[in-house]
Amino acid sequence: MPAPVLDFWFDFASTYSYLAAMRIGTLAQDAGVRVRFRPFLLGPIFKAQGWNTSPFNLYPAKGRNMWRDLERLCEKHRLPWRRPTVFPRNSLLAARVACCAGTAISTLTRAIFGANFADDRDIADPAVLREIIDSSGADGRRLVDLAQTPEVKAQLRANTAEAQRLGIFGAPDFVADGELFFGQDRLEDAIAWAQRSERFKRGFPPPTVP
Amino acid sequence: MPAPVLDFWFDFASTYSYLAAMRIGTLAQDAGVRVRFRPFLLGPIFKAQGWNTSPFNLYPAKGRNMWRDLERLCEKHRLPWRRPTVFPRNSLLAARVACCAGTAISTLTRAIFGANFADDRDIADPAVLREIIDSSGADGRRLVDLAQTPEVKAQLRANTAEAQRLGIFGAPDFVADGELFFGQDRLEDAIAWAQRSERFKRGFPPPTVP
Repeated sequence: MPAPVLDFWFDFASTYSYLAAMRIGTLAQDAGVRVRFRPFLLGPIFKAQGWNTSPFNLYPAKGRNMWRDLERLCEKHRLPWRRPTVFPRNSLLAARVACCAGTAISTLTRAIFGANFADDRDIADPAVLREIIDSSGADGRRLVDLAQTPEVKAQLRANTAEAQRLGIFGAPDFVADGELFFGQDRLEDAIAWAQRSERFKRGFPPPTVP
Repeated sequence: MPAPVLDFWFDFASTYSYLAAMRIGTLAQDAGVRVRFRPFLLGPIFKAQGWNTSPFNLYPAKGRNMWRDLERLCEKHRLPWRRPTVFPRNSLLAARVACCAGTAISTLTRAIFGANFADDRDIADPAVLREIIDSSGADGRRLVDLAQTPEVKAQLRANTAEAQRLGIFGAPDFVADGELFFGQDRLEDAIAWAQRSERFKRGFPPPTVP
């Protein structure tokens, strides 16, 4: 019997993706849902909407609310938080690393997000990234080299194109059985959807909704 | 001992404000929090950000997600939902009515939101609005007339100016003890904040957060 699957779409530059990345492992584990990590780049997607940076920078009131919201949410979820001195950080290399992390993806994703949003480290710097990867238990030099091969670059481009095709316009996002959920606030709903979809497929009657 | 107070900022044209309006009464009641209804207009606030309509219309992917999200959330919260044939509806007259509704504000707010988002009625039409108000138990003719007096018009303008001053950039919003919460997803957190603030003032020790 296959475990329900949830695709987790994220960008390492995205503040709310940090929250989702730190929360998803435990929630999915408890729910018996398998998470597929889908790193992508928001940059090209923002560009297609006419934005040359994060909407949180373009719209100051929206940005101020986001920074305060993150403080409150991290306190609520007992997560470390330090506002990064650079926002958004260039997440290209980190995303490529995630594309070739293999079975280390879950640990590595948390480590890179933590470096950006709890330790205020420059995840765009290959030396910093190697150190983060080493500390997380993987091989920093090998992964950062692998990340710069044509195959891995193509994989990240394909991910970003697929995100755009799915209708993704921000991050994080979750996709369960073809259903797209936007925003870390929908993490629990998306996990429930994945569980329910799997039950449907196994022939259980659908839950009744008045 | 005063009840904790939560300001609820909303626009009758706003889809997520509908959800908040239908949910806030029960939640606040259970929490012993008093809700102050603060109708305002998003239009001038969007204009100041360079938008001539809702961002859900300006950014199609964002809009598509919102409509689907609303369907799912209304099902989850057992709320009626019909996508309005006009979006955003002109909410000027309805907001003015809310500004002079007095003690009928809670009932009236639900009735007007329900007309827009469950019954797809044109809340911009004075005749329709009168009928909605009458059905809710208040005096439609009197309120719609009162809504068009200079005093009430000035009150709505003042509300919108205050919203802008508070850093509001979308709707709904909640303000508890000077703390701004944006989005219907933060309703529960805002209510908890209001309760906690009131406890602080009464000399209870603050809850410990690691």
